[in-house]
Amino acid sequence: MTDIRERKRIGVIGGARPDMASREAAVRVGELIAIAGAVLVCGGLGGVMEAAALGAKKAGGLTIGIVPGGSTSEANPAIDVPIATGIGYARNAIVALNADALIAIDGEYGTLSEIAYGIIYGKTVVGLGTWDIRGVIPAQTPEEAVRLALGGRS
Amino acid sequence: MTDIRERKRIGVIGGARPDMASREAAVRVGELIAIAGAVLVCGGLGGVMEAAALGAKKAGGLTIGIVPGGSTSEANPAIDVPIATGIGYARNAIVALNADALIAIDGEYGTLSEIAYGIIYGKTVVGLGTWDIRGVIPAQTPEEAVRLALGGRS
Amino acid sequence: MTDIRERKRIGVIGGARPDMASREAAVRVGELIAIAGAVLVCGGLGGVMEAAALGAKKAGGLTIGIVPGGSTSEANPAIDVPIATGIGYARNAIVALNADALIAIDGEYGTLSEIAYGIIYGKTVVGLGTWDIRGVIPAQTPEEAVRLALGGRS
Amino acid sequence: MTDIRERKRIGVIGGARPDMASREAAVRVGELIAIAGAVLVCGGLGGVMEAAALGAKKAGGLTIGIVPGGSTSEANPAIDVPIATGIGYARNAIVALNADALIAIDGEYGTLSEIAYGIIYGKTVVGLGTWDIRGVIPAQTPEEAVRLALGGRS
Repeated sequence: MTDIRERKRIGVIGGARPDMASREAAVRVGELIAIAGAVLVCGGLGGVMEAAALGAKKAGGLTIGIVPGGSTSEANPAIDVPIATGIGYARNAIVALNADALIAIDGEYGTLSEIAYGIIYGKTVVGLGTWDIRGVIPAQTPEEAVRLALGGRS
Repeated sequence: MTDIRERKRIGVIGGARPDMASREAAVRVGELIAIAGAVLVCGGLGGVMEAAALGAKKAGGLTIGIVPGGSTSEANPAIDVPIATGIGYARNAIVALNADALIAIDGEYGTLSEIAYGIIYGKTVVGLGTWDIRGVIPAQTPEEAVRLALGGRS
Repeated sequence: MTDIRERKRIGVIGGARPDMASREAAVRVGELIAIAGAVLVCGGLGGVMEAAALGAKKAGGLTIGIVPGGSTSEANPAIDVPIATGIGYARNAIVALNADALIAIDGEYGTLSEIAYGIIYGKTVVGLGTWDIRGVIPAQTPEEAVRLALGGRS
Repeated sequence: MTDIRERKRIGVIGGARPDMASREAAVRVGELIAIAGAVLVCGGLGGVMEAAALGAKKAGGLTIGIVPGGSTSEANPAIDVPIATGIGYARNAIVALNADALIAIDGEYGTLSEIAYGIIYGKTVVGLGTWDIRGVIPAQTPEEAVRLALGGRS
């Protein structure tokens, strides 16, 4: 486990109640992040966050979940390293800080705040069926999203 | 001063480097907020935040500025009640929490995060030359923006 | 109201369930802060925080209450300017940041954390029947506590 | 790595500039935490935090460091999972939240705030040459400190 610190960290942000297609995309994104050897960071709750973490676990990856409440038990079961913050939605800033790049999938206003923080903090933000915001790099598939997040070309 | 607590609070959010038209709109919005007897809440720094606070002071209003750093001296001179948070951009959540309604003028990604928080927290968010985001009520003039923020019809 | 920004700010920190003597001391401390023309800052909830705010209001002062939850309605009725943070006990850091000096009265572990933050941030911390901690300047009476907090000699 | 979530988490809190004896105690505490199969959580910076993390790494353990600044690079080199918070000293609350029990070694006012938060959050707080505070369980040796933190008898 000595190399965890060296790995890239990719954040996956997205809605708590995604439709089936977004959920499947999130699972695939998580899987591809793990296959690439990167660590998955997310907000630790349900929906896109859980689907991506499940995908990463399926591929043997490591998952970090930064939750709004004061208990690590709030994190979904696919999170290896839950971090309780107790600061509510202000934790969205912390999610964005802890990723080298972010992939937004679906999502509502919490996701929008994380997209905004990602760009404020100078992170690459890739979008997959999410808010169409200036500064978000659009991707068409999970494969393209992960490739762009890892620094490749579209 | 016993009635401060009873007054409505209107948050003005917006960019640190607005163009002249946005700056003038912000001054006018601040003025109208004060004339309506509401308290102005903002992020306490420069640009739209300072212009709106100046407008409010000009009309005898009260201004609260919630700044990201650890010192109240960071607040612009038109802020009566500076609140230092020391939590960086995570303070954007606190700006949104402390207003009954928000008016976004111009603005970049910090403003976008505050718009998102405003909607998450169930506040009315009015936009004046800002991000065109679902959930933001568009206004054409400072007068309309303040009227909408105070709960009137457009 | 144009001079609020110029006034000293004295923070009063202390327990939510003080005994009668501590409550009376807090009322008197609040009163003296207001008489001195300073603004009272506190955590906005009950017990010592409410007693001090009541004392300040009785003497015509201005009171700021920085609450842990996400709603300004959480503040006690003697608070003029409630600030909702939504960050839970992490708001204790913000209470300490927003005072030029702190007076601790009675108090449990929340107060202890605020004493610690006060010293970290280089504030004068005066104690009145509270934790006996290196760095806290002990006072015997509300009068002495407020005098010390305002920068006078003991 | 699938069992990380199941392991106990022990927080080590303490000064940034410990004397040699405290540093050695911190190394030994970290080592014993790792030998016991627990995860080490700390504030991620230097001094006691780094010494404990080094001890844990020496024994093959996993280390989480929750830093005050906005960059994970702020964490000392013995941290496997750095978490950047960007919220300054308010992160002390988050350190305490993320441990099942805390061991305080040496330490100044930051440590004092973390002791206070630990007790607020209902965690066992063990002290080794640190603040003599009601509620802190005193230990005489690293062995005793770790045994107490893991729930054993003194």
